[in-house]
Amino acid sequence: MDPHWQRRVRESFLRQGLMQHLGAELVAVRAGECEIRVRYREELTQQHGYFHAGVTSAIADSASGYAAYSQMPPDHSVLTVEYKINLVAPAAGDMLIARARVVRSGKTLKVCAADVFAVKDGAENLCATSLSTIMAMAGKSDAPSSTEGASAQR
Amino acid sequence: MDPHWQRRVRESFLRQGLMQHLGAELVAVRAGECEIRVRYREELTQQHGYFHAGVTSAIADSASGYAAYSQMPPDHSVLTVEYKINLVAPAAGDMLIARARVVRSGKTLKVCAADVFAVKDGAENLCATSLSTIMAMAGKSDAPSSTEGASAQR
Amino acid sequence: MDPHWQRRVRESFLRQGLMQHLGAELVAVRAGECEIRVRYREELTQQHGYFHAGVTSAIADSASGYAAYSQMPPDHSVLTVEYKINLVAPAAGDMLIARARVVRSGKTLKVCAADVFAVKDGAENLCATSLSTIMAMAGKSDAPSSTEGASAQR
Amino acid sequence: MDPHWQRRVRESFLRQGLMQHLGAELVAVRAGECEIRVRYREELTQQHGYFHAGVTSAIADSASGYAAYSQMPPDHSVLTVEYKINLVAPAAGDMLIARARVVRSGKTLKVCAADVFAVKDGAENLCATSLSTIMAMAGKSDAPSSTEGASAQR
Repeated sequence: MDPHWQRRVRESFLRQGLMQHLGAELVAVRAGECEIRVRYREELTQQHGYFHAGVTSAIADSASGYAAYSQMPPDHSVLTVEYKINLVAPAAGDMLIARARVVRSGKTLKVCAADVFAVKDGAENLCATSLSTIMAMAGKSDAPSSTEGASAQR
Repeated sequence: MDPHWQRRVRESFLRQGLMQHLGAELVAVRAGECEIRVRYREELTQQHGYFHAGVTSAIADSASGYAAYSQMPPDHSVLTVEYKINLVAPAAGDMLIARARVVRSGKTLKVCAADVFAVKDGAENLCATSLSTIMAMAGKSDAPSSTEGASAQR
Repeated sequence: MDPHWQRRVRESFLRQGLMQHLGAELVAVRAGECEIRVRYREELTQQHGYFHAGVTSAIADSASGYAAYSQMPPDHSVLTVEYKINLVAPAAGDMLIARARVVRSGKTLKVCAADVFAVKDGAENLCATSLSTIMAMAGKSDAPSSTEGASAQR
Repeated sequence: MDPHWQRRVRESFLRQGLMQHLGAELVAVRAGECEIRVRYREELTQQHGYFHAGVTSAIADSASGYAAYSQMPPDHSVLTVEYKINLVAPAAGDMLIARARVVRSGKTLKVCAADVFAVKDGAENLCATSLSTIMAMAGKSDAPSSTEGASAQR
């Protein structure tokens, strides 16, 4: 296994422009597990003033992807194939925390589960739960090549 | 039916802080259909420089919600129960467009399908497809009450 | 709460023609939890000789529905709105066991998670995991009315 | 491409013990498309006398798998990674028909959509819609080896 996987995960997270734009932080990464949180801001809301499902989903997806990525060799890249998320309660609170874990780790495909909690007055309430399929792409760098970067922007 | 549903949808969209923060625009809303687009910015990327799945999902979710909301009476509010999304190709391009439609319109629950296209050099490529369950909440305003607004922020 | 909910669940299970046809048994039902198992037969296979995903899904769905139904009042009926299932390993073994639990119990909608295990040489191996949305239908009997029964068959 | 893919699909279908046990028929298979139907019997019901979601799901899953398999080389085997299904109306009628099509055909993963219709008094009513991820397994026979067959039964 790759001894530098924690650094790889942290560097990849910092390259995700969306995570910075949402103000999300990578709280913890362990083998097969990842935790991401984001504080409340008006820029993150849906029409009632709660966190938008897009924010809940974005941190659940990144946490699931990095939980899976932590178990991949260094020359692999991580790709979300699909996910399903149930929004079980309004995401109302000061902060959202997504906790993801690998449920089944195949060579090519990994299945992850994530729970998202809304923190309000210090108490955590489950507001969403997801199930994801993540793919390991062998021989593809996790960073954009200069060519790829240009083409991605186009 | 409500003769003002188009205005209701547009006003609700403008209250979604996240849609403004992502730079998303409500392109079109018809009975049972909705289209939302967002232009490429570095703030919206994942680690390879493509649009992050969180952006793809956020506009697919809002488009699905508003497609459903267009068929609800004025004193109802819209809530995403759950969705599943397949990310079928890299979201690489200048712009993403989400097009959602109501597949089945029950009184309480509506099922919506959405396709998301990445526009590159003028061509649209399918990059994601989703299936959502949306709930109509009778007697709940679509806007936050002053009490709710405060509690949402807390 | 209904003191007779265990009997209600068992009677409803016995009315499911498919569960009998597959040879499935209701092993246990507790408040918010349900366990169903089915023994291997050639009639239940896919092309490689493993249990077909349709069997895995059917017992995961019935177990999820009855976990939810156990928490409903007696004049309510149970309906699966949707589910997603990941088939994480070949369902190879003598027996399949589905264990479902209610993750979130709303008045109208309940969210359930189920795991399905293949039992082989006495060991249980996770072969599938699902996430379901279940609806409580107030004022609708769980049994077919004579009219309904006729119309269902037509 | 394989000139014998239609025969491959039909032979594989006949090896699925469950399809025979349910009385399901392979109606049509075209490149990237498949249709399966099943007639009403009491053995296929849920508690209200409608078709059980397990039947609806089983034919949607097999139709999706064979739509995908029709686009695979002859030395490949087909595997359902996951699917999500919305049960949008009671499956009440004389017959169920599942129609599946490949939405996106990657080399390793294919994404399929399926609609299931209940036929009643000659009219087709949409009762379910699904979205599936299907995997092509290179170098794995679609038929059980004698060893595999034995191990599957154990």
